[in-house]
Amino acid sequence: MSAVYEGALQDLVEEFGKLPGIGPKSAQRLAFHILQSESADVSALAQALTEVKKRVRFCDICGNVSEEAECTVCQDPRRDRSMICVVEEPKDVVAIERTREYRGLYHVLGGAIDPMAGVGPDNLRIKELMPRLQDGEVKECVIATDPNLEGEATATYLVRLLNSLGVTVTRLASGLPVGGDLEYADEVTLGRAFSGRRAMD
Amino acid sequence: MSAVYEGALQDLVEEFGKLPGIGPKSAQRLAFHILQSESADVSALAQALTEVKKRVRFCDICGNVSEEAECTVCQDPRRDRSMICVVEEPKDVVAIERTREYRGLYHVLGGAIDPMAGVGPDNLRIKELMPRLQDGEVKECVIATDPNLEGEATATYLVRLLNSLGVTVTRLASGLPVGGDLEYADEVTLGRAFSGRRAMD
Repeated sequence: MSAVYEGALQDLVEEFGKLPGIGPKSAQRLAFHILQSESADVSALAQALTEVKKRVRFCDICGNVSEEAECTVCQDPRRDRSMICVVEEPKDVVAIERTREYRGLYHVLGGAIDPMAGVGPDNLRIKELMPRLQDGEVKECVIATDPNLEGEATATYLVRLLNSLGVTVTRLASGLPVGGDLEYADEVTLGRAFSGRRAMD
Repeated sequence: MSAVYEGALQDLVEEFGKLPGIGPKSAQRLAFHILQSESADVSALAQALTEVKKRVRFCDICGNVSEEAECTVCQDPRRDRSMICVVEEPKDVVAIERTREYRGLYHVLGGAIDPMAGVGPDNLRIKELMPRLQDGEVKECVIATDPNLEGEATATYLVRLLNSLGVTVTRLASGLPVGGDLEYADEVTLGRAFSGRRAMD
């Protein structure tokens, strides 16, 4: 799309177009929305953008997003310090927190092992995880990487590495999604559901 | 989705979520993208947002977007001042400019007549159009409102209003889209294509 808008409007269309998942048409629609929005609303967005870069950092301990040196989970005295759940990204922490099933600590790797994208174990926060598991307080390490190729590879790598530390290493269950339809489950998921079947109480 | 992020990050997720076509998941993805972007890139976006509100206004004459009292089209001495093309929105000007078929002036109505949404002729820039057509220089007024219900209603209203001014009023041709497939054209479009058929040169 050629640059037919003038100056500031074209700049904004281009800036929006750099965001992930925003194509040229969406960028144009967003720019016109901004043009017709109240100045206060636009300032709020501009302010929120700069504040995030200024204030949000990563927790020194677990790597989750935080506005202080330690995140709210790591600081919270009510969390169960005998468990650490290993996830790929900060959004996974949010997803697990939403279940209200888990009260332990987290460790955010910052991705998964993916040789095709040049991501090896050294690019992840694995060396920061080791000392946390060796302080004697942690009893269980739950591996909650994504159930895809990269996540499984990372889980396998971690299990091998951590088994020598005397900590119980567990993996989230794979199986049929709740509310799903058995008929539509893929073979791998259905196979996992079979091999992971449980005696009914 | 409950607010589980902290402070600044949650603020940004909420601000992104207010934009049209950005759902909660996209807002979250965009916020994390910003968090991981270079500070300079984020500043550029924040800057572009405030600059648009500060610098972009609407042309006093035609209502198109502009950074000065008169837009570049109205200021351009090479434009054909005997023609005015009436469109709904500034993006329509961009679309027509891209064809390079039209060298006249524009008039942006700021929408179309839509009684269901409470938009009547008085809410559009129709009263600003009238004196422009009465200066004796303009010979033709091309109505280029959208070929939908509201656009057609607006065109019909304008044709009635303008016919008394001694200016030729024309409407963009409706018909089969170029590169389209006759078989897939809807009945109304195909009907228009028939009634608008031309002798081949």
